[in-house]
Order: sequence, then C-alpha cells, then structure tokens
Amino acid sequence: MDTVADLTEDELIASMLPLLPRGDRTVVPAGDDAAVVEAPDGRFCTTTDVLVEDRHFRRDWGEASDVGWRAAAQNLADVAAMGAEPTSLVVSLVLPAATSVDWVHGLCRGMAEICGPIGVGVVGGDLSGGQQLVVAVTAHGDLGGRPAVLRSGARPGDVLAHAGVLGAAAGGYALLEAGVHAGGEQALVSAFLRPAPPLAAGPRAAAAGASALMDVSDGLLRDAGRMARASAVVLDVDDLAATVPGDLERLADAATRTGQDPVRWMLTGGEDHGLLAAFPGDVRLPDGFRRIGTVREPADHRAGTVLVRGAAPDVGATGWDHFRA
Amino acid sequence: MDTVADLTEDELIASMLPLLPRGDRTVVPAGDDAAVVEAPDGRFCTTTDVLVEDRHFRRDWGEASDVGWRAAAQNLADVAAMGAEPTSLVVSLVLPAATSVDWVHGLCRGMAEICGPIGVGVVGGDLSGGQQLVVAVTAHGDLGGRPAVLRSGARPGDVLAHAGVLGAAAGGYALLEAGVHAGGEQALVSAFLRPAPPLAAGPRAAAAGASALMDVSDGLLRDAGRMARASAVVLDVDDLAATVPGDLERLADAATRTGQDPVRWMLTGGEDHGLLAAFPGDVRLPDGFRRIGTVREPADHRAGTVLVRGAAPDVGATGWDHFRA
Repeated sequence: MDTVADLTEDELIASMLPLLPRGDRTVVPAGDDAAVVEAPDGRFCTTTDVLVEDRHFRRDWGEASDVGWRAAAQNLADVAAMGAEPTSLVVSLVLPAATSVDWVHGLCRGMAEICGPIGVGVVGGDLSGGQQLVVAVTAHGDLGGRPAVLRSGARPGDVLAHAGVLGAAAGGYALLEAGVHAGGEQALVSAFLRPAPPLAAGPRAAAAGASALMDVSDGLLRDAGRMARASAVVLDVDDLAATVPGDLERLADAATRTGQDPVRWMLTGGEDHGLLAAFPGDVRLPDGFRRIGTVREPADHRAGTVLVRGAAPDVGATGWDHFRA
Repeated sequence: MDTVADLTEDELIASMLPLLPRGDRTVVPAGDDAAVVEAPDGRFCTTTDVLVEDRHFRRDWGEASDVGWRAAAQNLADVAAMGAEPTSLVVSLVLPAATSVDWVHGLCRGMAEICGPIGVGVVGGDLSGGQQLVVAVTAHGDLGGRPAVLRSGARPGDVLAHAGVLGAAAGGYALLEAGVHAGGEQALVSAFLRPAPPLAAGPRAAAAGASALMDVSDGLLRDAGRMARASAVVLDVDDLAATVPGDLERLADAATRTGQDPVRWMLTGGEDHGLLAAFPGDVRLPDGFRRIGTVREPADHRAGTVLVRGAAPDVGATGWDHFRA
C-alpha cells in the first residue's frame, strides 16, 4: 500500500482533486494560487477548526472518511451558526510519512460526502509532512442578505431553543472508549464519528428573526454560558429529561452499558454541533428547533449564569477544554 | 514563564485577541462562531498554507514574531498572486503543552506587524494541543472588480516578468543552516525569516492586464514549470546574472561563506514569495516588475518546458518537495 512518502506532493494533490467537490459557488477551483468563490451577499463568513490525531480522532475508531466528514461538519456548523449557507472549504493537512494514500483519499471522500450534496466546494488546500496527523479546515458561507446572528443578541423574555441532538456524540464517544459498542448503539457511534449538524436550521433561524444563535460544540452548558455572558443575561434551561425526552431515550442503552449518566452527556457532551438559539417570544420556532428554556434578566443570578432545572448531575465547571482536559 | 497548559483555552484566546488587528473590511471580528468580512467585489479569494515546526521553521532560528509574520506573508502572497488585495486571515494553531504563552503572543504580534499596516484583519482561529507546533493560515482577498489572473493565461509572445527578490530566502536559509550569519548578511536571514512579498504588485499586475500571475514559493524554475504547463507554453528565462544583477550581487558574500552557488539559489530557492507574471508584449511593466524572459510557442521544446539561459548550474528536477525533500 502506497504511503504519502511514495508520491511527490504534486502527484498526491493530483490524486486528491478529482475526489473533491467543486461547489456551486466556485468561480476558480483548487489548482491556482488561490480559489475564487462567489459572495453574492457582498460579505462572507469565515471560520476555522483544527483536528489533531489522538486528541480529536483516532484512526482505529473509524474510517478516514469519518474524519473528513467530521472536519468538514464542525466547520459547516459554525457557518450555519451565523445564519449563513456554507459555500466552500479549504483544508490544510499535516501527514506523517507513513500515512497511506488510501487514508488521504478516504478523508477526501468523507469531505465530499457532506459537502457535495449541499453544493459546498473544497476549493483549496495545502499539504505538509509532520509528526502527527492534523486536519485544519476553514469554511466560508453566504448570509443571503440577512444580518449575521451573533451569540450576543439574546434578550430577557426570549425563548431558548435548540436544533439537532443533545448528548449523542458523547454517548458514542463513551461507547468507543469503553469498546462496547454494537448493534443498535452504532447510531450513537455514528453521531460521534459523523455528526450531522442541522445546517439548514441556521439560515431558517436567521430568517425567522432569531436574536442569538450559536453552534453547540463544547457541550450545552459551556456554550450556553458563552451565550449568557456575551448577551449579559441568564439562561434558564428546562428539565431536559422532560423537555426533550427523545434525546434522553436514545442514550439509555449506552448509559447502562457504560455506567455513565445520560443527562450529563446532554448537558456537557461536546461535538453534537447542534444550534442553540434565542427567539423573541412572539416568533414561531422554525422547523427543527425545540424550546429548551427561557432567557431571563440577571436579577437573582448574575449575568452569564446558566440555570439547569430538573435532576441535573453535579457538572461543576463544565465542558471541554483543550489544554486542561 | 507560563506555558499554554497553565491557561484555559478561553483565557489563552482572550489574551491573544487584543494583539491581533481587526482589519478594515471586518464586519464581525473574531469571537463569534464565525467572522464576517466585506466582499465588495461579490467574490472573494481564499488560500491556505500550513507551517510545521522543524520543517518550515525552527524556534531557535528567530523570534516567534518571525514565524507569525512568515505564516501570514506566504498566504497574503497567494492572494496577491490572483491580482487581489488581501482582506483577512484566520489561523489554526496546534500547540504542544510546553509552548510558552510569550511565544504565542509573539506569533500574534508578528501577524499583526504585517497585517495591521495594510488593513488586513486576523478575524478568527482555533487552538488545539498536539505533539508538534503547527500554524495553519487561511487568507482572503478582494479582486476589486478585476478578473482573477490565473497561472494558465501566459501566451506566446508575452513578456515574462518578476516582482520581488530571487534567491534571498535561500541564501538566508543557507546561512542559518551553516550557523555563519552575521553583520551585513542579516538582511538575507531576514529575507528568509520575514519575507516581504510585493503584495501591491499583484493588483497592479492585474490592472495592467497581466495574462498570467503566480506566487514564487517553491523556486523560480519549479513554479515557472507550473505556469508553463498550465499555460501549455515554453518559458524562456534570460541569463539572470545579467538580467537581475542586483539580486545576484546581494547573494555574493553569503555564497562565499557557505560555499554554495548563488545562481542556484536564484533558480531553485523557495520562500521568496515574489510574483511571476506574463504580460502581453505591448504592456508597459507595472512598478516593481522586471523582465526576466519570454513566453514561447512549444515548437522545438514541448509545452511545459522552462529554458534557462546563461551559466545555469545543473539543477535537475528542481525545487522543494515536502514529501521527498
């Protein structure tokens, strides 16, 4: 099996390009010094996220295509979280010399599988050798004439809503780590390996008049805390076991098998890449969003607090921290 | 001295943001899920380049700010090489736990030093731990209503021209590697550590009607070969010792001290990030460009060939290859 060290950089790139989607908005595709992408709105969104082997993914946990899918998905989710439609990605790869060419091609295919059907192009990239596999993706999107929806816009009286799933990726991760996944639980493992952010819900939220919107990548509580601080409000989260029972039910078997707490997964599990939104009380929630709480004045609690109703586990200072985890 | 492991990710980011320029075209700066940047042209350029420690830079060869400068510079050069004006960068960093916070701040300052004065914003980023220091930058630019200038547009009869310097970064690299740099040769070391791409020459070339344009990052011969193949022409390069004697003269002392061939540096040295352009014969070369050859029909030589006049060293299959170097 060929490794990347058996090919020249130009040969490797030439073998990758046909696997990657051009994109509906691409004027000049990959191959020149830079790509050119349409920005009909006259503005574009941009965001970047990096995945490092043995930190964000393990090669023995899934296929190369899962890593490509996930690297794209989490960046596309950040674009959707501004209320924008994704248009394009660029990708920098650091590849140890022993990386198989097949693995790199699988990575490309995974990116194509999520990007191709929604018209997103993979329009550029760079390759380097290195000690550890790194996948750095930058995504771009178009706001379609709407204002960007920031995390700082939540106002007292707003409804707090969520689109996507809560805790599924954390459940899948726990199963992988415990080595016990099988059968029906494969769905949770997929939710971790191939998160499916509700991308279309982002522009829908913006069009419906969302006052705040953000990607939930580091866990509901931690990300809600960021929205609460940015908006200088208190977020009052309903009892999730009662509010989104379907999300909890989906986690039951995995919780039993791993001996972990499914409510904790829902509150602190990262990598689901759902969308957290605040909507004015008179707005009908757009498709995909379910009410999970209320935005309150910082009265009894200081601004930036997230209150959790129901039987919440003691989660302390929650969520994922790359340097302290 | 604090290392990145002494801070939370949020604390580290909060300490970096004030060091980074916001940018003249930035609508929503770093801090939300994605940034929003103006694209007055209705299109934007995007390109990405990754730097890996001990492969693209060594921490003991210069300051952190040099690495930040260089990571930004080589991406900005790719934007200029489309004929565009750079508007913004996003940056993904992989930082080993022992990386000092000072080093990270120095990196930010170096990016600010090249981006700030030209109105380019550093509008987003991501951090991760990892084994090896990696700096992945994506740059964006605006075409100002002009067509993008591709590397595939060179036509027989065009003048081949170059803006920037040839061989200086290779000379500086040779001095650093030999450990013999001092005094006057510091200028070459700077040319390697802090390349100064002729950014304004890119849009000038586009406005003047350049038929082809590209960044010279992997050495003149290798990159000229790419232009020749993309354009299906032969590029006939004049005797550089006679054509750009100033570039050669600047290398003389370093060549003596290292025992290397300065013409080889000019032909095959990478990382100068000058611009190679083809202009129709009736175009007056814009400021910064000097004639270095002619674009010819593929008659006696097949398309894609680069001919080198004068006393050229035997350079074989030239230039830098990340996986075979």
